[in-house]
Amino acid sequence: METYEILRDLAIIILAAKFMGLVAKKCKIPSVVGEIVAGLIIGPCLPGLINLIIPGVIPSNFLSGLVQPSDFINWMAEIGVILIMFSAGLETNLKELKKSGLQALVIACFGVAVPLVFGAILYMCFHGFAAPGTEEFFCAAFIGSIMTATSVSITVESLRELGHLQGRVGQTILSAAIIDDVIGIIVLTFVLGMKDPSSNPGMVIVKTVLFLLVSFVGGIVCYKVFKKVDARYPHTRRIPIIGLGICFILSYIAERYFGIADITGAYLAGIILCNVRDASYIDRKVSINSYMIFAPVFFVGIGLKTDFSSMDTSMLLFSVLFVVVALAGKIIGCSGISKCLGFNMPDSLKIGIGMMTRGEVALIITSKGLNLGIIDASYFTAVILLIIVSSVVVPILLKAVYSKYPDGAYPEKKSEKAAS
Amino acid sequence: METYEILRDLAIIILAAKFMGLVAKKCKIPSVVGEIVAGLIIGPCLPGLINLIIPGVIPSNFLSGLVQPSDFINWMAEIGVILIMFSAGLETNLKELKKSGLQALVIACFGVAVPLVFGAILYMCFHGFAAPGTEEFFCAAFIGSIMTATSVSITVESLRELGHLQGRVGQTILSAAIIDDVIGIIVLTFVLGMKDPSSNPGMVIVKTVLFLLVSFVGGIVCYKVFKKVDARYPHTRRIPIIGLGICFILSYIAERYFGIADITGAYLAGIILCNVRDASYIDRKVSINSYMIFAPVFFVGIGLKTDFSSMDTSMLLFSVLFVVVALAGKIIGCSGISKCLGFNMPDSLKIGIGMMTRGEVALIITSKGLNLGIIDASYFTAVILLIIVSSVVVPILLKAVYSKYPDGAYPEKKSEKAAS
Repeated sequence: METYEILRDLAIIILAAKFMGLVAKKCKIPSVVGEIVAGLIIGPCLPGLINLIIPGVIPSNFLSGLVQPSDFINWMAEIGVILIMFSAGLETNLKELKKSGLQALVIACFGVAVPLVFGAILYMCFHGFAAPGTEEFFCAAFIGSIMTATSVSITVESLRELGHLQGRVGQTILSAAIIDDVIGIIVLTFVLGMKDPSSNPGMVIVKTVLFLLVSFVGGIVCYKVFKKVDARYPHTRRIPIIGLGICFILSYIAERYFGIADITGAYLAGIILCNVRDASYIDRKVSINSYMIFAPVFFVGIGLKTDFSSMDTSMLLFSVLFVVVALAGKIIGCSGISKCLGFNMPDSLKIGIGMMTRGEVALIITSKGLNLGIIDASYFTAVILLIIVSSVVVPILLKAVYSKYPDGAYPEKKSEKAAS
Repeated sequence: METYEILRDLAIIILAAKFMGLVAKKCKIPSVVGEIVAGLIIGPCLPGLINLIIPGVIPSNFLSGLVQPSDFINWMAEIGVILIMFSAGLETNLKELKKSGLQALVIACFGVAVPLVFGAILYMCFHGFAAPGTEEFFCAAFIGSIMTATSVSITVESLRELGHLQGRVGQTILSAAIIDDVIGIIVLTFVLGMKDPSSNPGMVIVKTVLFLLVSFVGGIVCYKVFKKVDARYPHTRRIPIIGLGICFILSYIAERYFGIADITGAYLAGIILCNVRDASYIDRKVSINSYMIFAPVFFVGIGLKTDFSSMDTSMLLFSVLFVVVALAGKIIGCSGISKCLGFNMPDSLKIGIGMMTRGEVALIITSKGLNLGIIDASYFTAVILLIIVSSVVVPILLKAVYSKYPDGAYPEKKSEKAAS
């Protein structure tokens, strides 16, 4: 690959991603969906699809599309994911999380557990029952873990629009969604730890615990040192650069020495630094790197790798059921436990609906699975469908429930009493 | 190369670059020198050197250093150079340039021509006379063109410190340095155009003119369209992204279709957009991408590729003479013509000294030559030496001349009369 060709690829990717992202926003769907579609259009997917419908209409040298997946794009995409997860970690508000306490934690746990189990069962319905410990069981667990992470941004946007973000339901959803990211990452870490067929669950637990321990101790040291540097040189260039260095190192250590996904390391690095004074400064600088070049490459890269040629009726059916199960899992898990925790029926429903949205993290987990050879690219279809459907459906449902049962319209006393 | 290994390389590179850059700044030398030294330390150069001095002291599996040059680093470095040149273009002040007019232009021309000729002659002194049109002649011209570009940042810093930046001499140096970048790029374009041994100078001129014509017409169209988008969506993310897209495309077109260096395309893209309202906004966003990741990779990459093992007495002598000739070339060219243009003797000297500094652009040109196989990595030594010496010497000399001959202390009337 000539050096100047990467410039061509990059130009096409960032411009197409921005354009399709804006189009998606106009259509009220998340811009990441637009960016993935951009990848489908500029990559081998679109010409392949046209050729499938009208064979021979595309000359053979146009079949590979404008941009092809390459090592370079894979590497840039990997950096993109790392930056996104680092940013997510940096934006975590640990104080807020502590305050919201046990209630949100319990809701988050059920919001992770139910879709995880549902997802695994769905996979087994298609591929037959798998005994714990087998490779098939691991795949099933992986499909389940894709369903776990809530993407709260669309819910936040909708609640803010409706004026209910600061209410008790809104705050509960927000906290639970953040905690469910953390739990989701732990689940993923554990599931990916089992990717090595020779490793036993005990070993995975040991490795995971060891890594968390090392990160905790290392994290405290990093935090203390960083805080001093930050206090002495606030708002200087060295601050985000050192932060980014820590993120890259922790990601590398996680994957290289503990067999844990690098994205877990990046997320943890963000959490380690989320309480330093310049956390939002680091986040801003990292985000600019992310949205200008790396993140578009990641999302477009998903589109480039998506391959509909292996799509059949069974896979299509699976995708539709995947969406239904993922949405139902969150509703059943979160609404159910909320009701048990003393929320009234409409509020429980609101919480369940608010937790249904999925986004970047689901894609990141899927992409990780693809890179590790756990699943093939056709599963992206199901995940993309889930993101689109959830982000279209949730705002509509939230609005409907809120207009039928505004906050306080339902016998609030009972719920308040129970919740206090 | 495993994906997670790029994270390790990146972490080491950005942290080492920042650290050594800060050390360099403390020592009052440009931070890019520190970043290059970081590359020497973390790359194969340092262990190789130690091994050369005390054979066998370094175990063979440590001989390659912490970080090795790789495709990935090359690609990231290339993007780094493109971003630096785009940024330089964006920071060009066309109005200021027009105002300073003919005088600065003439000084710049001589500041390019004299070192170019001197450099070529120096090369021929070592490799024998080369007739125009031969490959050797082309190498000689290339060595000359490395000497052409002034790096004004150190001079600006020194003049600002001395309180003379806004004076006539300061403004003349500033304008001449900017113009000499443009002329330097044109010279480089022309010299690199001759890299193909089958191409004749006529063809190179036609290609260069054609490219400038295409860029001019395309540039006007881009500028008009961009201005409209910018007016409608000021300070939105799409502005820097579209700008960057244009930069990548023009760089690609330059190299792919006209055989012109991609850095020329990037610089031109910057000049095309330097007058839009959000130019400084684009520049800020691009700079953040540049200084966080890409630019350090470029400068450290130079250190990684530097190889002292091919260094011999002849090369060492060449390096020392290279520095002397490069500094003398600017003094003779710029001071000489300034005197002819009516500046008094001390002012002419100040201008000549101010134009002696070299920096990033010299490195970028050298690195281009290395990638194209025109020169080998040992020439980096000469260029790095030139940057270090010039940036140490110029502030000292400027201060000395200014304290001996403060502005106006010399018969100013004569020079004012002549200059008006």
